Amino acid sequence: MFPWKSTLTINTTSATPIYLQIANNIIRLISSGQLTKGHKIPGSRTLSELLEVNRKTVIQAYDELTAQGWLYSHPARGTFVNDSLPIITPIPLQNKSTHDDINPKPDHSTFNFIPAYSPQPLNTIEINDGSPDHRLAPIDWIYKECKSLSKTRHGKLLHKYNDVKGDETLRKELVKYLAETRGMNITSDHILITRGSQMGIFLIASISLQASDYAVVGDSSYDAADWTIQYTGATLQRITVDQEGLNTDELERFCKNHPVRLVYITPHHHFPTTVTLSNHRRIKLLELSLKYNFTIIEDDYDYDFHYSSSPMLPLASLNHQAHVAYIGSFSKIFAPSIRVGYITAHPKLINELTKLRRIVDRQGDPLLERVIAESITSGELTRHLKKTIREYKSRRDHFCKLLKSQLGDYTNFKIPEGGMAVWTNFNEKVKLRQALAKANDHGIAVNIDKQHIRKFNAMRLGFASLNHEEAQIAIGKLSEIIKQSAF
Amino acid sequence: MFPWKSTLTINTTSATPIYLQIANNIIRLISSGQLTKGHKIPGSRTLSELLEVNRKTVIQAYDELTAQGWLYSHPARGTFVNDSLPIITPIPLQNKSTHDDINPKPDHSTFNFIPAYSPQPLNTIEINDGSPDHRLAPIDWIYKECKSLSKTRHGKLLHKYNDVKGDETLRKELVKYLAETRGMNITSDHILITRGSQMGIFLIASISLQASDYAVVGDSSYDAADWTIQYTGATLQRITVDQEGLNTDELERFCKNHPVRLVYITPHHHFPTTVTLSNHRRIKLLELSLKYNFTIIEDDYDYDFHYSSSPMLPLASLNHQAHVAYIGSFSKIFAPSIRVGYITAHPKLINELTKLRRIVDRQGDPLLERVIAESITSGELTRHLKKTIREYKSRRDHFCKLLKSQLGDYTNFKIPEGGMAVWTNFNEKVKLRQALAKANDHGIAVNIDKQHIRKFNAMRLGFASLNHEEAQIAIGKLSEIIKQSAF
Repeated sequence: MFPWKSTLTINTTSATPIYLQIANNIIRLISSGQLTKGHKIPGSRTLSELLEVNRKTVIQAYDELTAQGWLYSHPARGTFVNDSLPIITPIPLQNKSTHDDINPKPDHSTFNFIPAYSPQPLNTIEINDGSPDHRLAPIDWIYKECKSLSKTRHGKLLHKYNDVKGDETLRKELVKYLAETRGMNITSDHILITRGSQMGIFLIASISLQASDYAVVGDSSYDAADWTIQYTGATLQRITVDQEGLNTDELERFCKNHPVRLVYITPHHHFPTTVTLSNHRRIKLLELSLKYNFTIIEDDYDYDFHYSSSPMLPLASLNHQAHVAYIGSFSKIFAPSIRVGYITAHPKLINELTKLRRIVDRQGDPLLERVIAESITSGELTRHLKKTIREYKSRRDHFCKLLKSQLGDYTNFKIPEGGMAVWTNFNEKVKLRQALAKANDHGIAVNIDKQHIRKFNAMRLGFASLNHEEAQIAIGKLSEIIKQSAF
Repeated sequence: MFPWKSTLTINTTSATPIYLQIANNIIRLISSGQLTKGHKIPGSRTLSELLEVNRKTVIQAYDELTAQGWLYSHPARGTFVNDSLPIITPIPLQNKSTHDDINPKPDHSTFNFIPAYSPQPLNTIEINDGSPDHRLAPIDWIYKECKSLSKTRHGKLLHKYNDVKGDETLRKELVKYLAETRGMNITSDHILITRGSQMGIFLIASISLQASDYAVVGDSSYDAADWTIQYTGATLQRITVDQEGLNTDELERFCKNHPVRLVYITPHHHFPTTVTLSNHRRIKLLELSLKYNFTIIEDDYDYDFHYSSSPMLPLASLNHQAHVAYIGSFSKIFAPSIRVGYITAHPKLINELTKLRRIVDRQGDPLLERVIAESITSGELTRHLKKTIREYKSRRDHFCKLLKSQLGDYTNFKIPEGGMAVWTNFNEKVKLRQALAKANDHGIAVNIDKQHIRKFNAMRLGFASLNHEEAQIAIGKLSEIIKQSAF
């Protein structure tokens, strides 16, 4: 007789109803060929005794299996595995009781250039490379608005499927906002609402690059943009970044011999070194984009955070978007969890990006998008920015003072004019990588791109997410670790 | 003299401050080579008179331009375009005053197989192909929970950057929920939280397919899945769908001579025809996936909506996820705007999908994900589902009765056992495509995949989003249009 008792294991503490566990197990036995067609199933009384479950439960399982056509009942003879099922050859891998050791057979691409993500503990003090402080964000206001908007007639409609390009009201408000803050001369046809900046990078890189193309980034640059370019199959070329930003002469020499289709830049504050792209390089870059026919991704992730002089106008404000695809995000302004960003580009490019957006993720969150629009109209955004800029400026000064006093002998940095991070070079006495490996033991989480640390013995230290007290602790601990590792 | 008055247009009604408009215009003139290096700029008094603006405004613009290095001032001689800028050759396209007619030069991929999206008016009665009714969703509860969760210590942490795989609590709750409802035997390592189902399709197709591969879908199938497969460059092969679902014998014949790497199916209710994949074809399909080594995307978009017998267990519950990547979504359960879905698959595949998710869109909305988890724990989800299933069942019956009584002479349909739509065949007297072209004139929006209409003279009529009164109006209007077009 079939080893029912050992094969058909019941877990009484599981959330799955027992009748469904039985039915499910029997279906698995049939699917895997262990119960063949015409096989007689024990009577409900027998099985209930074997499994030590209520007979009604077994009957319920059989009824389910019969309704689904796995079994059939013959009034006098009993219950059988359905004859009309196709011939099944036993599949060895289905015999295993655990499946975590099964190597999935179907081939799929692997992305070894993207490191596996390991989540950091969220509740320790974290040194990051320039995250905003979510605690300053008007989260309460956002959900209050979501809730009350949802009760209105027009708000209710936002819960239906909506425009792939994003909420029309937000796009119209953005036209005004971008004109006011960035002198950008566009219409709502130039805007595609995305999730965060990353989706913007993904969409533009995917649409611009073929495997035979070259894409240029700074040496070094934002890691997730590197990965995205590598994902497309294009060749990633790094060009020197100095005190004026990306070296456009080197870029020009490279373009002469290579089909460059994309240049990814963060001209306002270069990632990671925070330098601003000088105006003659800006012009040169635009000129090269026309001459060599490439798209510029202008990732302007921290335009809104400037503490001294006026920020430089984005390239997109000069170029009429024909060769520049500009990326901005509200995640940096509000909080990483508020995933609303945008691309501005030429309407023809926006139309193609919209088609790709359609298959990547149908649409965004129209209600949240409308509330972001409301934050522009009502002045909530401006109020929040004023408050945040004041606070971040004070944090920057405090942070840099601590860095100077506690690690001045080991580091070399410039106080940044804007943004959320200080590019900090460590001198050769410091083995930065080895030192940071011990951070967790000291109770701080270091959430910073390893590539730059390795390459430059430097790191981008974010000051924006740490209040004065936290900065004191974080730099105190960092200083301990660095000093222990230095000779 | 340079034609300042005609070139430098000021818009006094614009949201951009006038000084920024002036600065911006001058930067454009420099960038485009119209103002060459060393060119003398008019004095602030002269320009203020020419442009009819306050002199202080012009001074402010010049100060900004000087600070940014575009201009320099010579105390006695005046203000000039900076000499140190690179040599600029005039770029013709920058001369145009409007830029919408500029053809963007950079090459990029075009996706002609994806139709441009044209948003439908949201406030008319809409006939769709099976959307849920957002008005039944506990939206109020969701935002109330978001708001109060945000005030807690652990809720605040959710506003930081979070796990790419999605909220850990939701993944753990899903393990229990999927065991209970689908007999699925998995751990949280088998789950990746996505936005809606579409992101799931995009991620799995992108990772499974190369340009030399074949992917199989039903004839016909869900349009956005077709587009996604076409986007990967793989060849899309259509296999007949009959009353038992996808014809697995035809699939087998095809697999013998072609490298099939992916099969996309909606086995619970085939999209669009709503038939359920029979159990012997399910087994056959799993068997073929092992033999020919392809991944099955099981898009189980409406598993939770069954009105008569119990639903069939998903393939993923039989196969241990080694060859099946299963897609589910809360967008169908709650509302299209609640964009939280998931993939369950083998942990190794999940790890690679997570890397791709990282560059597509960094992460989801951790707070909303936690609230969805809370809806499972607290029973809110079950309550909502019970209410919705009761209501949809009643809407199905009402809708089908109306369809029978008003269009019975023109149509042929089966009352579906579950889901949100009725597959309705129209007889040859009806020119369905031409008829529907006039829908807007009759005040109804028809939001249904055109491909099926053209191919089968049939359409998938969604009943779930229309209450009894709306169904009456919608079918009334539809009936008018159909009868007018029939001969």
